[in-house]
Amino acid sequence: MAHLLHLNSSIQGESSTSRRLTARAAQRWQATHPGGTVTYRDLAVDPIPHLNASTGMARLLPAEDRTPAQHTSFALTEQLVTEVKQADTVLLGLPLYNYGPPSTVKAWVDHLVAPGLSIGADGTGLLADTDFVVIESRGGGYGSGTPRHGWDHAEAWLPHSLSHTGLQPKFIVAELTMADANPTMDQLKPLARESLDQAIAQIDRLWEAREHVA
Amino acid sequence: MAHLLHLNSSIQGESSTSRRLTARAAQRWQATHPGGTVTYRDLAVDPIPHLNASTGMARLLPAEDRTPAQHTSFALTEQLVTEVKQADTVLLGLPLYNYGPPSTVKAWVDHLVAPGLSIGADGTGLLADTDFVVIESRGGGYGSGTPRHGWDHAEAWLPHSLSHTGLQPKFIVAELTMADANPTMDQLKPLARESLDQAIAQIDRLWEAREHVA
Repeated sequence: MAHLLHLNSSIQGESSTSRRLTARAAQRWQATHPGGTVTYRDLAVDPIPHLNASTGMARLLPAEDRTPAQHTSFALTEQLVTEVKQADTVLLGLPLYNYGPPSTVKAWVDHLVAPGLSIGADGTGLLADTDFVVIESRGGGYGSGTPRHGWDHAEAWLPHSLSHTGLQPKFIVAELTMADANPTMDQLKPLARESLDQAIAQIDRLWEAREHVA
Repeated sequence: MAHLLHLNSSIQGESSTSRRLTARAAQRWQATHPGGTVTYRDLAVDPIPHLNASTGMARLLPAEDRTPAQHTSFALTEQLVTEVKQADTVLLGLPLYNYGPPSTVKAWVDHLVAPGLSIGADGTGLLADTDFVVIESRGGGYGSGTPRHGWDHAEAWLPHSLSHTGLQPKFIVAELTMADANPTMDQLKPLARESLDQAIAQIDRLWEAREHVA
């Protein structure tokens, strides 16, 4: 049975571009995988606790050495890794905040990178069988030749952060999403529209091959 | 009266390199600023809540439109910005986790970037008068020519993330800190020692000029 894990992380609710686009992608997935199961997790509505001084080392300790707080944290790690393993495809909505990922996405990743659960004893990534589609929205423009090229540290960081688990993000990006709301970006509206249209077209081609095979 | 804001974020407690090094830097600061005030905040022991779906938009709404949860979140933003404004120098211990900053540091930054509080109506960074010393520790090696050059997304991201506030981090970095614990890094021990020695030497030269002027 096909299984999609759908995650959102935008704090913007209804007005979020990444939420709108992952909703479209999830519909597309359901249309191409009739009868498939969708698991939904909202990192902005139910944030995952930070790894902290009481819990953070849980993943590096043998079970018998864990404190109660570390046991609780490790149980959440197991749950999050299991969610990914049970999915054929993970779909993540990733807005860019202050040139980085939401802190909730960092916390999710910090749980996922877990020796023994997502990384084998020989260093093999145990999540390599899961496809990972990331739909990123960013308010400004970060393309080659723009003044802030290289400032999108979410897109740059995510593949590295999960590399040991075998999860490899494939990005679909909509940028200049603030052009409609920000008068100083008025001239960028056509580029914003183009970027959104391209993202939508990419979403609408997702799982095409599989659709034909199914 | 001179004022230092000292922050740590490592989850490793006593065995943390960044904690040991910021402690040394704080001592150095106190020695060069007799009678100065030190404010301490531990992001790993008392993590700052994530910006989430209920609180995250508080910084972008007028006061009268904020929900109770947004009021609480905004009060924390005011407190965190005020802490920085009251300090001549901010000292941050920044370990690299999964090739990025701890999620608690991202949450701290997400609060600090606040129009009207840390960013003026004309776009001026209102925290530009505060020095910002960041002591970073990272387990591997990320120097030019190494296989993971460019994988330190904490160092790359931090200056961009705070650029609108005027805070400009000056980095002191100790790397290969896992060489002692990880047998596969045995040959890197001398380089790790060298990196640590250099970081310590840089710390011991901090505030030198000011010491002579005072």
